[in-house]
Amino acid sequence: MLISQLSAKTARASSAQGPAVPKGQQKGQQTKAAIVDAALGLATQIGLEGLSIGALAEVMHMSKSGVFAHFGSREELQISVVREYHARFEEEVFYPVLSQPRGLPRLQAMFHNWMHRTSVELDSGCIYISGAVEFDDRPGPVRDALAESVRTWLAAMTRAVMQAKEAGHLHQEADEHQMAFEIHGLILALHYEARFLQTPGSIARANTGFANILARYGNPGALAPAASGATSATSFLSEANPAAPDSPPSSPSV
Amino acid sequence: MLISQLSAKTARASSAQGPAVPKGQQKGQQTKAAIVDAALGLATQIGLEGLSIGALAEVMHMSKSGVFAHFGSREELQISVVREYHARFEEEVFYPVLSQPRGLPRLQAMFHNWMHRTSVELDSGCIYISGAVEFDDRPGPVRDALAESVRTWLAAMTRAVMQAKEAGHLHQEADEHQMAFEIHGLILALHYEARFLQTPGSIARANTGFANILARYGNPGALAPAASGATSATSFLSEANPAAPDSPPSSPSV
Repeated sequence: MLISQLSAKTARASSAQGPAVPKGQQKGQQTKAAIVDAALGLATQIGLEGLSIGALAEVMHMSKSGVFAHFGSREELQISVVREYHARFEEEVFYPVLSQPRGLPRLQAMFHNWMHRTSVELDSGCIYISGAVEFDDRPGPVRDALAESVRTWLAAMTRAVMQAKEAGHLHQEADEHQMAFEIHGLILALHYEARFLQTPGSIARANTGFANILARYGNPGALAPAASGATSATSFLSEANPAAPDSPPSSPSV
Repeated sequence: MLISQLSAKTARASSAQGPAVPKGQQKGQQTKAAIVDAALGLATQIGLEGLSIGALAEVMHMSKSGVFAHFGSREELQISVVREYHARFEEEVFYPVLSQPRGLPRLQAMFHNWMHRTSVELDSGCIYISGAVEFDDRPGPVRDALAESVRTWLAAMTRAVMQAKEAGHLHQEADEHQMAFEIHGLILALHYEARFLQTPGSIARANTGFANILARYGNPGALAPAASGATSATSFLSEANPAAPDSPPSSPSV
């Protein structure tokens, strides 16, 4: 399971409500969660570095000191946003794949969900990508939180590849770190070429790239329909390259 | 040839010195080139959006109005920086490959030079990557200049793949746009994982990824040493995956 420290903290901070929590404290947590929600919306558009207590107070129709009281510093606000983003990423991309059988079906689902989220973010921006540029030369707790969040996800992807090897769906010599690196590259190229360059066909290219990676490492012996009821590798491969199924309605040109 | 409009303009603006240019004008051009040089240094570290006439005046020990007189606007300064970056990228990455035979040797040289430049930029930052994040949601002439510069380079990469197909070094069914997309992804993943995540082994992974792409599309018939004297595809493939030859001295952990 990939319940990282980050997301556990987020859960405690923003949504875990025990019956013993006093009403005032509960309201405080709800307000804080609402501020983080607004801050996340702002940060995906203008970046984590663009966040300010002042801008957020305006959006929330609160006083600056009211916002400040919930975080204590701009840095703590940024870290809360990273944690919230991490929690949502896990919720949307990672947790749903746990219902898939280990091996290729789960790896497929991970890529599929990641592609879906990236496609949606072609319009809004992605904190993992913009944040990396903002903080790659700024050591500190915000950078640490962001890098830890991305590393956690890439480690989950690496683990899924290892499980696919164990299940015999991929060749034993497949290097899980290499595969995760190449898959990460496809997602980054999709974001760059579709969002910045506005190159048509980028989503289809990322899907084809994934199919190419699987074809290289796929185990031909596993390509027959699996007796276990798991999605067969054949359908996995064919499903990995549809005609841009994840294109959001608002990005027709991609 | 890939002498784009952008670089042609840069050459005219910053370095083309005919004997008929009056001395005062020549000095003005030299000063402007020096400002652009300083601005490029700043922009690779703090981003194009971080550039200001004021900060630049301080670095150059000039008055704000003195700097302003050379550009007229901050936007024009940013565009001059993009053009200069483009010119240097061509100088370092593209022009040297023209001495290589068309086909795999030239494609190899392009990737090799791109990797080298990216490796050096793991310390300093890369305007093509940071600029994409800064301007992906800001339409205007700076974004246009930056996107045009990247597109020009990716088109050159695509053309090199086509030439490799024509030369019989790659399968006829190899999709040049797909290959350029996947190669771009490797460079982006290298920059992200080495610079932001500081993951060891990233350079070797990018090189292995390139070898994997070539292995997929390589034409087995072309893998024997070429009679023409061109670098054979075999040495191409083996050279594509050395032990991180491009790591700059200051990034020992990458």
